[in-house]
Amino acid sequence: MMIRLHRSPSSSMARLIGQPDLCSVSNWTSRENQLHNRSSRATEQLVALCKWLEMRMTKLIAGTTISLDGFTADAKGSPAALYADFAELQQSEAMQHAYRTTGAVIMGRRSFDMAEDPDSYAEDYEFRTPLIIVTAKPPAKHPKEGNGVSIIFATSGVADAVRQAKQAAGDRDVTCVGGGMLIQSLLRESLVDELQIDIAPVILGSGLRLFENVDQRKLKLTSATSLAGGRTSLVYEPL
Amino acid sequence: MMIRLHRSPSSSMARLIGQPDLCSVSNWTSRENQLHNRSSRATEQLVALCKWLEMRMTKLIAGTTISLDGFTADAKGSPAALYADFAELQQSEAMQHAYRTTGAVIMGRRSFDMAEDPDSYAEDYEFRTPLIIVTAKPPAKHPKEGNGVSIIFATSGVADAVRQAKQAAGDRDVTCVGGGMLIQSLLRESLVDELQIDIAPVILGSGLRLFENVDQRKLKLTSATSLAGGRTSLVYEPL
Repeated sequence: MMIRLHRSPSSSMARLIGQPDLCSVSNWTSRENQLHNRSSRATEQLVALCKWLEMRMTKLIAGTTISLDGFTADAKGSPAALYADFAELQQSEAMQHAYRTTGAVIMGRRSFDMAEDPDSYAEDYEFRTPLIIVTAKPPAKHPKEGNGVSIIFATSGVADAVRQAKQAAGDRDVTCVGGGMLIQSLLRESLVDELQIDIAPVILGSGLRLFENVDQRKLKLTSATSLAGGRTSLVYEPL
Repeated sequence: MMIRLHRSPSSSMARLIGQPDLCSVSNWTSRENQLHNRSSRATEQLVALCKWLEMRMTKLIAGTTISLDGFTADAKGSPAALYADFAELQQSEAMQHAYRTTGAVIMGRRSFDMAEDPDSYAEDYEFRTPLIIVTAKPPAKHPKEGNGVSIIFATSGVADAVRQAKQAAGDRDVTCVGGGMLIQSLLRESLVDELQIDIAPVILGSGLRLFENVDQRKLKLTSATSLAGGRTSLVYEPL
Protein backbone atom coordinates (compact mmCIF):
# COMPACT_ATOMS: atom_id res chain seq x y z
CA MET A 1 0.00 0.00 0.00
CA MET A 2 1.14 3.54 -0.72
CA ILE A 3 1.61 6.05 2.07
CA ARG A 4 -1.26 8.52 1.63
CA LEU A 5 -0.60 12.11 2.69
CA HIS A 6 -2.59 15.27 2.43
CA ARG A 7 -1.34 17.17 -0.59
CA SER A 8 0.63 20.36 -0.05
CA PRO A 9 2.48 22.66 -2.47
CA SER A 10 5.68 20.73 -1.84
CA SER A 11 7.40 21.83 -5.05
CA SER A 12 6.98 25.48 -4.01
CA MET A 13 8.34 24.52 -0.58
CA ALA A 14 11.31 22.81 -2.25
CA ARG A 15 12.00 25.89 -4.33
CA LEU A 16 11.79 28.05 -1.22
CA ILE A 17 14.23 26.10 0.95
CA GLY A 18 16.52 25.55 -2.07
CA GLN A 19 17.09 29.32 -2.52
CA PRO A 20 20.77 30.46 -2.50
CA ASP A 21 21.82 32.46 0.54
CA LEU A 22 21.32 36.16 -0.05
CA CYS A 23 24.00 37.50 2.31
CA SER A 24 27.62 37.98 1.28
CA VAL A 25 30.05 35.16 2.21
CA SER A 26 33.37 36.91 1.36
CA ASN A 27 34.25 37.83 4.96
CA TRP A 28 33.11 34.61 6.71
CA THR A 29 35.37 32.78 9.18
CA SER A 30 36.18 29.11 8.45
CA ARG A 31 33.79 28.18 11.29
CA GLU A 32 31.03 30.16 9.54
CA ASN A 33 31.89 28.45 6.23
CA GLN A 34 31.70 25.05 7.93
CA LEU A 35 28.27 25.88 9.38
CA HIS A 36 27.11 27.20 6.03
CA ASN A 37 28.21 24.01 4.25
CA ARG A 38 26.51 21.83 6.81
CA SER A 39 23.31 23.86 6.42
CA SER A 40 23.58 23.57 2.61
CA ARG A 41 23.84 19.79 2.83
CA ALA A 42 20.79 19.74 5.12
CA THR A 43 18.94 21.92 2.61
CA GLU A 44 19.83 19.55 -0.25
CA GLN A 45 18.58 16.61 1.77
CA LEU A 46 15.37 18.49 2.52
CA VAL A 47 14.86 19.25 -1.18
CA ALA A 48 15.38 15.55 -2.03
CA LEU A 49 12.93 14.58 0.73
CA CYS A 50 10.34 17.04 -0.60
CA LYS A 51 10.70 15.63 -4.12
CA TRP A 52 10.28 12.11 -2.76
CA LEU A 53 7.21 13.18 -0.78
CA GLU A 54 5.84 14.93 -3.86
CA MET A 55 6.14 11.69 -5.83
CA ARG A 56 4.43 9.82 -3.00
CA MET A 57 1.67 12.44 -2.94
CA THR A 58 1.04 12.39 -6.68
CA LYS A 59 -2.10 10.32 -7.05
CA LEU A 60 -2.53 7.63 -9.66
CA ILE A 61 -6.06 7.91 -11.00
CA ALA A 62 -7.26 4.99 -13.10
CA GLY A 63 -10.32 5.96 -15.07
CA THR A 64 -12.43 4.43 -17.78
CA THR A 65 -16.00 3.98 -18.97
CA ILE A 66 -17.83 0.66 -18.76
CA SER A 67 -21.28 -0.52 -19.78
CA LEU A 68 -23.68 -1.47 -16.95
CA ASP A 69 -22.57 -5.06 -17.57
CA GLY A 70 -18.91 -4.16 -17.18
CA PHE A 71 -17.52 -4.03 -20.73
CA THR A 72 -15.03 -1.42 -21.99
CA ALA A 73 -15.69 -2.31 -25.61
CA ASP A 74 -18.14 -4.43 -27.58
CA ALA A 75 -17.41 -7.85 -29.09
CA LYS A 76 -15.76 -6.17 -32.09
CA GLY A 77 -13.42 -4.21 -29.78
CA SER A 78 -15.23 -0.90 -30.34
CA PRO A 79 -15.97 1.37 -27.37
CA ALA A 80 -18.28 3.56 -29.53
CA ALA A 81 -21.52 2.45 -27.80
CA LEU A 82 -20.14 3.76 -24.49
CA TYR A 83 -19.45 7.23 -25.86
CA ALA A 84 -22.75 8.32 -27.44
CA ASP A 85 -22.22 11.45 -25.29
CA PHE A 86 -18.59 12.04 -26.37
CA ALA A 87 -19.00 15.71 -27.34
CA GLU A 88 -20.78 16.65 -24.06
CA LEU A 89 -18.26 14.62 -22.08
CA GLN A 90 -15.31 16.58 -23.49
CA GLN A 91 -16.94 19.80 -22.31
CA SER A 92 -17.98 18.45 -18.90
CA GLU A 93 -16.53 19.96 -15.72
CA ALA A 94 -15.27 16.48 -14.75
CA MET A 95 -13.11 16.23 -17.91
CA GLN A 96 -11.96 19.84 -17.70
CA HIS A 97 -10.92 19.15 -14.10
CA ALA A 98 -9.00 16.06 -15.22
CA TYR A 99 -7.16 18.08 -17.90
CA ARG A 100 -6.20 20.71 -15.32
CA THR A 101 -4.99 18.33 -12.61
CA THR A 102 -3.22 15.70 -14.73
CA GLY A 103 0.55 16.05 -14.94
CA ALA A 104 1.21 12.83 -16.87
CA VAL A 105 -0.86 10.18 -18.62
CA ILE A 106 -0.09 6.48 -18.45
CA MET A 107 -1.62 4.10 -20.99
CA GLY A 108 -1.25 0.60 -22.33
CA ARG A 109 0.33 -0.04 -25.72
CA ARG A 110 -2.93 -1.23 -27.28
CA SER A 111 -4.69 1.99 -26.24
CA PHE A 112 -1.78 4.04 -27.63
CA ASP A 113 -1.96 2.16 -30.94
CA MET A 114 -5.68 2.97 -31.28
CA ALA A 115 -4.61 6.32 -32.80
CA GLU A 116 -4.24 5.71 -36.53
CA ASP A 117 -1.17 7.96 -36.62
CA PRO A 118 1.03 7.99 -33.48
CA ASP A 119 2.31 11.44 -34.50
CA SER A 120 -1.22 12.77 -33.95
CA TYR A 121 -0.79 12.76 -30.13
CA ALA A 122 1.45 15.84 -30.41
CA GLU A 123 -1.17 17.52 -32.60
CA ASP A 124 -4.51 16.89 -30.97
CA TYR A 125 -4.40 14.68 -27.88
CA GLU A 126 -6.66 16.14 -25.19
CA PHE A 127 -4.02 15.84 -22.42
CA ARG A 128 -1.04 18.17 -23.09
CA THR A 129 1.33 16.24 -20.80
CA PRO A 130 4.02 13.58 -20.92
CA LEU A 131 2.53 10.24 -22.02
CA ILE A 132 4.01 7.10 -20.50
CA ILE A 133 3.27 4.07 -22.65
CA VAL A 134 3.63 0.66 -20.96
CA THR A 135 4.99 -1.71 -23.58
CA ALA A 136 7.33 -4.63 -24.10
CA LYS A 137 9.09 -2.94 -27.04
CA PRO A 138 9.05 0.68 -28.25
CA PRO A 139 8.13 1.31 -31.91
CA ALA A 140 11.00 1.57 -34.43
CA LYS A 141 10.33 5.28 -34.98
CA HIS A 142 9.76 7.53 -31.97
CA PRO A 143 6.48 9.44 -32.46
CA LYS A 144 6.37 13.21 -32.85
CA GLU A 145 6.35 15.26 -29.64
CA GLY A 146 5.42 18.88 -28.93
CA ASN A 147 2.75 21.21 -27.54
CA GLY A 148 3.36 19.84 -24.05
CA VAL A 149 3.17 16.21 -25.19
CA SER A 150 6.31 14.09 -24.73
CA ILE A 151 6.26 10.33 -25.14
CA ILE A 152 8.09 7.81 -22.96
CA PHE A 153 7.95 4.07 -23.69
CA ALA A 154 8.25 2.31 -20.33
CA THR A 155 9.60 -1.20 -20.88
CA SER A 156 10.43 -2.31 -17.31
CA GLY A 157 6.99 -3.24 -16.03
CA VAL A 158 4.03 -1.46 -14.57
CA ALA A 159 5.53 -0.34 -11.24
CA ASP A 160 8.49 1.28 -13.02
CA ALA A 161 6.15 2.94 -15.54
CA VAL A 162 4.17 4.44 -12.64
CA ARG A 163 7.41 5.68 -11.04
CA GLN A 164 8.38 7.39 -14.31
CA ALA A 165 4.87 8.85 -14.72
CA LYS A 166 4.86 10.25 -11.17
CA GLN A 167 8.28 11.80 -11.75
CA ALA A 168 7.00 13.38 -14.97
CA ALA A 169 3.78 14.60 -13.34
CA GLY A 170 5.48 16.94 -10.83
CA ASP A 171 2.94 18.04 -8.26
CA ARG A 172 -0.04 17.08 -10.42
CA ASP A 173 -1.70 13.65 -10.79
CA VAL A 174 -1.03 10.70 -13.06
CA THR A 175 -4.09 9.63 -15.01
CA CYS A 176 -4.32 6.12 -16.42
CA VAL A 177 -6.71 6.24 -19.35
CA GLY A 178 -6.63 2.46 -19.93
CA GLY A 179 -6.85 0.00 -21.35
CA GLY A 180 -8.48 -2.59 -19.20
CA MET A 181 -5.43 -4.83 -18.95
CA LEU A 182 -3.25 -2.00 -17.65
CA ILE A 183 -5.91 -1.02 -15.07
CA GLN A 184 -6.06 -4.67 -13.97
CA SER A 185 -2.27 -4.76 -13.53
CA LEU A 186 -2.33 -1.51 -11.56
CA LEU A 187 -5.09 -2.86 -9.30
CA ARG A 188 -3.27 -6.15 -8.77
CA GLU A 189 -0.11 -4.30 -7.77
CA SER A 190 -2.06 -1.90 -5.47
CA LEU A 191 -0.83 1.11 -7.45
CA VAL A 192 -4.24 2.76 -7.89
CA ASP A 193 -5.02 5.64 -5.54
CA GLU A 194 -8.33 6.59 -7.14
CA LEU A 195 -10.59 4.50 -9.36
CA GLN A 196 -12.88 6.61 -11.58
CA ILE A 197 -15.46 4.41 -13.23
CA ASP A 198 -18.04 5.94 -15.53
CA ILE A 199 -21.06 3.75 -16.21
CA ALA A 200 -22.62 4.31 -19.63
CA PRO A 201 -26.38 3.69 -19.93
CA VAL A 202 -26.13 0.56 -22.03
CA ILE A 203 -25.91 -3.21 -21.65
CA LEU A 204 -23.45 -4.58 -24.24
CA GLY A 205 -24.02 -8.31 -23.66
CA SER A 206 -20.48 -9.22 -24.69
CA GLY A 207 -17.07 -7.66 -25.33
CA LEU A 208 -13.98 -6.83 -23.30
CA ARG A 209 -14.54 -6.83 -19.55
CA LEU A 210 -12.76 -4.24 -17.42
CA PHE A 211 -12.53 -6.38 -14.32
CA GLU A 212 -10.92 -9.74 -15.05
CA ASN A 213 -8.16 -11.38 -13.02
CA VAL A 214 -8.43 -8.93 -10.14
CA ASP A 215 -8.59 -9.81 -6.47
CA GLN A 216 -11.36 -9.06 -3.99
CA ARG A 217 -10.96 -5.48 -2.79
CA LYS A 218 -13.02 -3.18 -0.60
CA LEU A 219 -13.54 0.34 -1.94
CA LYS A 220 -14.52 3.66 -0.44
CA LEU A 221 -16.96 5.66 -2.58
CA THR A 222 -15.77 9.27 -2.60
CA SER A 223 -18.23 10.68 -5.15
CA ALA A 224 -21.10 9.71 -7.44
CA THR A 225 -22.21 12.16 -10.13
CA SER A 226 -24.77 11.97 -12.92
CA LEU A 227 -23.48 13.48 -16.15
CA ALA A 228 -25.34 14.41 -19.32
CA GLY A 229 -26.45 11.52 -21.50
CA GLY A 230 -27.22 9.17 -18.59
CA ARG A 231 -23.58 8.60 -17.67
CA THR A 232 -22.83 8.03 -13.95
CA SER A 233 -19.36 8.86 -12.71
CA LEU A 234 -18.27 6.89 -9.65
CA VAL A 235 -15.04 7.65 -7.80
CA TYR A 236 -13.59 5.12 -5.37
CA GLU A 237 -10.51 4.84 -3.21
CA PRO A 238 -9.25 1.24 -2.97
CA LEU A 239 -8.95 0.30 0.73
CA MET B 1 -42.25 -4.00 -25.72
CA MET B 2 -44.95 -3.23 -23.19
CA ILE B 3 -47.37 -0.40 -23.74
CA ARG B 4 -46.37 2.22 -21.18
CA LEU B 5 -49.14 4.44 -19.81
CA HIS B 6 -49.21 7.06 -17.13
CA ARG B 7 -50.56 5.48 -13.99
CA SER B 8 -54.02 6.44 -12.78
CA PRO B 9 -56.16 5.18 -9.90
CA SER B 10 -57.87 2.76 -12.25
CA SER B 11 -59.02 0.38 -9.50
CA SER B 12 -60.92 3.20 -7.81
CA MET B 13 -62.41 4.11 -11.20
CA ALA B 14 -63.45 0.47 -11.73
CA ARG B 15 -65.09 0.34 -8.33
CA LEU B 16 -66.92 3.59 -9.06
CA ILE B 17 -68.40 2.61 -12.43
CA GLY B 18 -69.18 -0.90 -11.09
CA GLN B 19 -71.47 0.49 -8.38
CA PRO B 20 -75.06 -0.90 -8.43
CA ASP B 21 -77.78 1.53 -9.49
CA LEU B 22 -79.10 3.41 -6.47
CA CYS B 23 -82.61 4.12 -7.81
CA SER B 24 -85.50 1.66 -7.46
CA VAL B 25 -86.20 -0.59 -10.50
CA SER B 26 -89.59 -2.02 -9.40
CA ASN B 27 -91.74 0.32 -11.57
CA TRP B 28 -89.51 0.33 -14.75
CA THR B 29 -91.02 -0.27 -18.23
CA SER B 30 -89.53 -3.11 -20.34
CA ARG B 31 -87.79 -0.43 -22.49
CA GLU B 32 -86.22 0.98 -19.34
CA ASN B 33 -85.15 -2.53 -18.28
CA GLN B 34 -83.62 -3.11 -21.74
CA LEU B 35 -81.66 0.14 -21.52
CA HIS B 36 -80.54 -0.68 -17.98
CA ASN B 37 -79.29 -4.14 -19.08
CA ARG B 38 -77.43 -2.66 -22.03
CA SER B 39 -75.81 -0.08 -19.75
CA SER B 40 -74.89 -2.84 -17.24
CA ARG B 41 -73.14 -4.83 -20.01
CA ALA B 42 -71.24 -1.68 -21.07
CA THR B 43 -70.26 -1.12 -17.43
CA GLU B 44 -68.99 -4.71 -17.13
CA GLN B 45 -66.94 -4.26 -20.29
CA LEU B 46 -65.52 -0.99 -18.91
CA VAL B 47 -64.59 -2.70 -15.63
CA ALA B 48 -62.80 -5.47 -17.57
CA LEU B 49 -60.99 -2.86 -19.68
CA CYS B 50 -59.89 -0.97 -16.57
CA LYS B 51 -58.55 -4.19 -15.03
CA TRP B 52 -56.66 -4.95 -18.24
CA LEU B 53 -55.25 -1.40 -18.33
CA GLU B 54 -54.31 -1.68 -14.67
CA MET B 55 -52.32 -4.85 -15.40
CA ARG B 56 -50.60 -3.12 -18.31
CA MET B 57 -49.77 -0.16 -16.08
CA THR B 58 -48.30 -2.22 -13.25
CA LYS B 59 -44.55 -1.87 -13.61
CA LEU B 60 -42.14 -4.77 -13.32
CA ILE B 61 -39.13 -3.54 -11.37
CA ALA B 62 -36.09 -5.80 -11.41
CA GLY B 63 -33.68 -4.87 -8.68
CA THR B 64 -30.54 -6.29 -7.20
CA THR B 65 -27.14 -5.38 -5.81
CA ILE B 66 -23.90 -6.06 -7.66
CA SER B 67 -20.24 -5.48 -6.90
CA LEU B 68 -18.42 -2.90 -9.05
CA ASP B 69 -17.23 -5.85 -11.16
CA GLY B 70 -20.78 -7.10 -11.68
CA PHE B 71 -21.18 -10.03 -9.28
CA THR B 72 -24.34 -10.77 -7.25
CA ALA B 73 -22.49 -13.21 -5.01
CA ASP B 74 -18.93 -14.29 -4.36
CA ALA B 75 -17.31 -17.51 -5.61
CA LYS B 76 -18.90 -19.43 -2.68
CA GLY B 77 -22.36 -18.13 -3.65
CA SER B 78 -22.59 -15.71 -0.72
CA PRO B 79 -23.88 -12.16 -1.29
CA ALA B 80 -22.71 -11.09 2.22
CA ALA B 81 -19.87 -8.85 0.96
CA LEU B 82 -22.44 -6.76 -0.95
CA TYR B 83 -24.58 -6.11 2.12
CA ALA B 84 -22.15 -4.75 4.71
CA ASP B 85 -24.76 -1.96 5.01
CA PHE B 86 -27.76 -4.30 5.39
CA ALA B 87 -29.23 -2.68 8.53
CA GLU B 88 -29.02 0.88 7.12
CA LEU B 89 -30.41 -0.33 3.80
CA GLN B 90 -33.54 -1.76 5.43
CA GLN B 91 -34.23 1.63 6.99
CA SER B 92 -33.44 3.65 3.85
CA GLU B 93 -36.13 5.71 2.15
CA ALA B 94 -35.48 3.74 -1.07
CA MET B 95 -36.38 0.42 0.60
CA GLN B 96 -39.31 1.90 2.52
CA HIS B 97 -40.61 3.25 -0.82
CA ALA B 98 -40.23 -0.19 -2.38
CA TYR B 99 -42.20 -1.80 0.47
CA ARG B 100 -45.00 0.78 0.06
CA THR B 101 -45.29 0.53 -3.75
CA THR B 102 -44.81 -3.22 -4.25
CA GLY B 103 -48.01 -5.23 -4.72
CA ALA B 104 -46.35 -8.56 -5.51
CA VAL B 105 -42.84 -10.00 -5.46
CA ILE B 106 -41.50 -12.34 -8.11
CA MET B 107 -38.41 -14.41 -7.44
CA GLY B 108 -36.51 -17.40 -8.76
CA ARG B 109 -36.67 -20.76 -7.01
CA ARG B 110 -33.03 -20.64 -5.92
CA SER B 111 -33.60 -17.27 -4.23
CA PHE B 112 -36.74 -18.61 -2.54
CA ASP B 113 -34.83 -21.65 -1.29
CA MET B 114 -32.19 -19.41 0.32
CA ALA B 115 -34.52 -19.12 3.32
CA GLU B 116 -33.65 -22.04 5.62
CA ASP B 117 -37.33 -22.54 6.43
CA PRO B 118 -39.84 -21.71 3.64
CA ASP B 119 -42.50 -21.19 6.34
CA SER B 120 -40.50 -18.19 7.57
CA TYR B 121 -41.71 -15.99 4.65
CA ALA B 122 -45.12 -15.70 6.33
CA GLU B 123 -43.41 -14.78 9.60
CA ASP B 124 -40.74 -12.27 8.74
CA TYR B 125 -40.32 -11.53 5.02
CA GLU B 126 -39.89 -7.80 4.48
CA PHE B 127 -42.51 -7.62 1.68
CA ARG B 128 -46.02 -8.39 3.00
CA THR B 129 -47.41 -9.27 -0.46
CA PRO B 130 -48.12 -12.27 -2.68
CA LEU B 131 -44.85 -13.99 -3.65
CA ILE B 132 -44.70 -15.53 -7.12
CA ILE B 133 -41.96 -18.15 -7.32
CA VAL B 134 -40.79 -19.13 -10.82
CA THR B 135 -40.03 -22.83 -10.71
CA ALA B 136 -40.23 -26.04 -12.72
CA LYS B 137 -41.88 -27.94 -9.85
CA PRO B 138 -43.55 -26.72 -6.65
CA PRO B 139 -42.32 -28.23 -3.36
CA ALA B 140 -44.21 -31.24 -1.98
CA LYS B 141 -45.55 -29.21 0.96
CA HIS B 142 -46.99 -25.74 0.32
CA PRO B 143 -45.27 -23.23 2.62
CA LYS B 144 -47.13 -21.37 5.35
CA GLU B 145 -48.95 -18.19 4.30
CA GLY B 146 -50.32 -15.25 6.29
CA ASN B 147 -49.73 -11.66 7.38
CA GLY B 148 -50.29 -10.50 3.79
CA VAL B 149 -47.90 -13.11 2.35
CA SER B 150 -49.39 -15.66 -0.03
CA ILE B 151 -47.22 -17.96 -2.14
CA ILE B 152 -47.83 -18.93 -5.77
CA PHE B 153 -45.53 -21.36 -7.59
CA ALA B 154 -45.58 -20.34 -11.27
CA THR B 155 -44.65 -23.32 -13.41
CA SER B 156 -45.53 -22.11 -16.93
CA GLY B 157 -42.53 -19.93 -17.69
CA VAL B 158 -41.42 -16.42 -16.97
CA ALA B 159 -44.01 -14.51 -19.04
CA ASP B 160 -46.86 -16.34 -17.35
CA ALA B 161 -45.31 -15.79 -13.92
CA VAL B 162 -45.17 -12.06 -14.64
CA ARG B 163 -48.82 -12.11 -15.73
CA GLN B 164 -49.79 -13.79 -12.45
CA ALA B 165 -47.65 -11.36 -10.45
CA LYS B 166 -49.22 -8.33 -12.15
CA GLN B 167 -52.69 -9.71 -11.49
CA ALA B 168 -51.79 -10.21 -7.82
CA ALA B 169 -50.18 -6.74 -7.53
CA GLY B 170 -53.41 -4.81 -8.26
CA ASP B 171 -52.53 -1.19 -8.90
CA ARG B 172 -49.11 -1.46 -7.26
CA ASP B 173 -45.82 -2.65 -8.81
CA VAL B 174 -44.25 -6.06 -9.18
CA THR B 175 -40.74 -6.24 -7.74
CA CYS B 176 -38.35 -8.93 -8.90
CA VAL B 177 -35.81 -9.44 -6.12
CA GLY B 178 -33.69 -11.91 -8.14
CA GLY B 179 -31.85 -14.06 -8.61
CA GLY B 180 -29.62 -13.19 -11.50
CA MET B 181 -30.94 -15.91 -13.81
CA LEU B 182 -34.53 -14.72 -13.44
CA ILE B 183 -33.49 -11.09 -14.12
CA GLN B 184 -31.64 -12.30 -17.22
CA SER B 185 -34.76 -14.13 -18.46
CA LEU B 186 -36.92 -11.06 -17.81
CA LEU B 187 -34.46 -8.84 -19.72
CA ARG B 188 -34.28 -11.30 -22.64
CA GLU B 189 -38.07 -11.35 -22.88
CA SER B 190 -38.30 -7.53 -22.59
CA LEU B 191 -40.47 -7.82 -19.49
CA VAL B 192 -38.51 -5.35 -17.36
CA ASP B 193 -39.96 -1.83 -17.07
CA GLU B 194 -37.43 -0.56 -14.56
CA LEU B 195 -33.97 -1.88 -13.75
CA GLN B 196 -32.75 -0.90 -10.26
CA ILE B 197 -29.10 -1.76 -9.87
CA ASP B 198 -27.32 -0.99 -6.62
CA ILE B 199 -23.54 -0.97 -6.85
CA ALA B 200 -21.81 -2.01 -3.62
CA PRO B 201 -18.38 -0.50 -2.96
CA VAL B 202 -16.41 -3.69 -3.47
CA ILE B 203 -14.62 -5.63 -6.20
CA LEU B 204 -15.30 -9.36 -5.73
CA GLY B 205 -12.94 -10.71 -8.41
CA SER B 206 -15.09 -13.80 -9.03
CA GLY B 207 -18.54 -15.21 -8.35
CA LEU B 208 -21.96 -15.13 -9.99
CA ARG B 209 -22.34 -12.42 -12.62
CA LEU B 210 -25.68 -10.62 -12.93
CA PHE B 211 -25.39 -9.93 -16.64
CA GLU B 212 -24.73 -13.12 -18.60
CA ASN B 213 -26.53 -14.20 -21.75
CA VAL B 214 -28.25 -10.88 -22.25
CA ASP B 215 -28.48 -8.92 -25.47
CA GLN B 216 -27.20 -5.43 -26.21
CA ARG B 217 -29.72 -2.92 -24.89
CA LYS B 218 -29.79 0.84 -24.58
CA LEU B 219 -30.97 2.19 -21.22
CA LYS B 220 -32.32 5.48 -19.98
CA LEU B 221 -30.94 6.53 -16.58
CA THR B 222 -33.85 7.86 -14.52
CA SER B 223 -32.07 8.32 -11.19
CA ALA B 224 -28.71 7.90 -9.48
CA THR B 225 -28.52 8.12 -5.70
CA SER B 226 -25.74 7.61 -3.17
CA LEU B 227 -26.87 5.68 -0.13
CA ALA B 228 -25.15 5.17 3.21
CA GLY B 229 -22.20 2.80 3.23
CA GLY B 230 -20.96 3.80 -0.24
CA ARG B 231 -23.79 2.09 -2.10
CA THR B 232 -24.93 3.76 -5.37
CA SER B 233 -28.47 3.11 -6.53
CA LEU B 234 -28.97 3.41 -10.29
CA VAL B 235 -32.42 3.25 -11.88
CA TYR B 236 -32.76 2.64 -15.62
CA GLU B 237 -35.60 2.19 -18.07
CA PRO B 238 -34.73 -0.29 -20.84
CA LEU B 239 -35.26 1.39 -24.23
